[in-house]
Amino acid sequence: MSNIGLLLEYDGTNYNGWQSQSIGRTIQQEIESATNTIFGVNAPVVASGRTDTGVHARGQVAHLILPETANNVPLANIAKAINSKLPRDIRVLSAETVAPDFHARFSAISREYVYRMSAHSSVFTRNYVWTPEVPYNYDMLSSALRLFEGTHNFTAISKNNPDTKSYECTVENCELEEHSDEFLIRIRANRFVYGMCRAILGTAMGVARNRLRMEDIPRLLASASRENQEPLAPPHGLYLNRVYYSTRIFENYFVNL
Amino acid sequence: MSNIGLLLEYDGTNYNGWQSQSIGRTIQQEIESATNTIFGVNAPVVASGRTDTGVHARGQVAHLILPETANNVPLANIAKAINSKLPRDIRVLSAETVAPDFHARFSAISREYVYRMSAHSSVFTRNYVWTPEVPYNYDMLSSALRLFEGTHNFTAISKNNPDTKSYECTVENCELEEHSDEFLIRIRANRFVYGMCRAILGTAMGVARNRLRMEDIPRLLASASRENQEPLAPPHGLYLNRVYYSTRIFENYFVNL
Repeated sequence: MSNIGLLLEYDGTNYNGWQSQSIGRTIQQEIESATNTIFGVNAPVVASGRTDTGVHARGQVAHLILPETANNVPLANIAKAINSKLPRDIRVLSAETVAPDFHARFSAISREYVYRMSAHSSVFTRNYVWTPEVPYNYDMLSSALRLFEGTHNFTAISKNNPDTKSYECTVENCELEEHSDEFLIRIRANRFVYGMCRAILGTAMGVARNRLRMEDIPRLLASASRENQEPLAPPHGLYLNRVYYSTRIFENYFVNL
Repeated sequence: MSNIGLLLEYDGTNYNGWQSQSIGRTIQQEIESATNTIFGVNAPVVASGRTDTGVHARGQVAHLILPETANNVPLANIAKAINSKLPRDIRVLSAETVAPDFHARFSAISREYVYRMSAHSSVFTRNYVWTPEVPYNYDMLSSALRLFEGTHNFTAISKNNPDTKSYECTVENCELEEHSDEFLIRIRANRFVYGMCRAILGTAMGVARNRLRMEDIPRLLASASRENQEPLAPPHGLYLNRVYYSTRIFENYFVNL
């Protein structure tokens, strides 16, 4: 038995998210279909977290426990072998042997998402960057985002998920960065509940567009109610950028993210 | 009767080029279907030049002669109206009234293509940037490209097109630029024959990979034969960037290209 860690990059445009009850292709299906073929077994691929329909990943982490009966593929060849069976919009960036008790989801100590926005829209970025049509105030957006930092109940700033027992999350960092022709929102938290990144940006946009006041954000968080929810930011600007573990994993790949 | 100039941007990934004899969707079809609906007429949309399957455009120019019977759409609304009927990977950036004798192809005095290359491949740039798998020498690529500048017969550095009478083209500029994480090849010429940009880059790559010598390039051009042709660079890195006319047109849009 061996436990294989996979570092994954995918373009979520044409998928119904990582895993989905509804009809349509999912990332997990595609990857399991590839790994089952390569290893000649039927083994689930478990990710650090599910990404929604249209959401991308630059550094999703997953693990896969192979039984003794699995085909013996040298570690150095695993990424290439799986990629040969995957569609072009999903790639294994790296494969590593991980400790037997490593779990992509439960071992993770925090996750970082980035959200790309630009003032200029183009056909080439239509699935990758959000260009808001309604004007907004940049400085207010930046200030509003910082109000989500800390430990809060994110019920009001998420979507309902019957499987979620607690909506308490600790946001370590929620910041707007200015790049040459793009804005980047970087959100790092110990955990994310369903729709949380898009709801954080959507709510901060409510302030940046003068529909909400700054002080409505702590009030909304405290209300723990979705009654007055702002529209979520669209999924296509969102990327699962990096997953952090207490053990070293895929270190060479995270230099430039 | 009025002559309308259109500035177009498109992602060529899912199209069989601008115009094609073969089966499949073409950009021209999509645009004519939209303009015919909006104007209630049947009028051809003529581009500055045909782009190949998978080739993109950031500044394609086309014109469209509307008969008196056409629906009257205010100029300021034309781009928006056409865009409402177009798929998301084709956009009209601007529409202008042009002189009655303006012809998108015959009035053009030069065209500029850019080709995007990167050392790093990703699922997000898979249809937009070429990442060569075989190593090559950057300085040799840069020097080899300059050898195409000037007036030459490009028979050897193109694909056959039975409609093309002359393969003589004047390349004003053929240069490699280094950007943060990409290389850009900028090629400006009075005209381009079929497959010429991809053949220029493919041939320069032959030198940069030590399959050809620098002096083979003038020899190939002089040979006017496709017998020893290098593989063409793939289409997905190529963009029709700008079309130049002796009259001012779409000036506001070319600031950042």
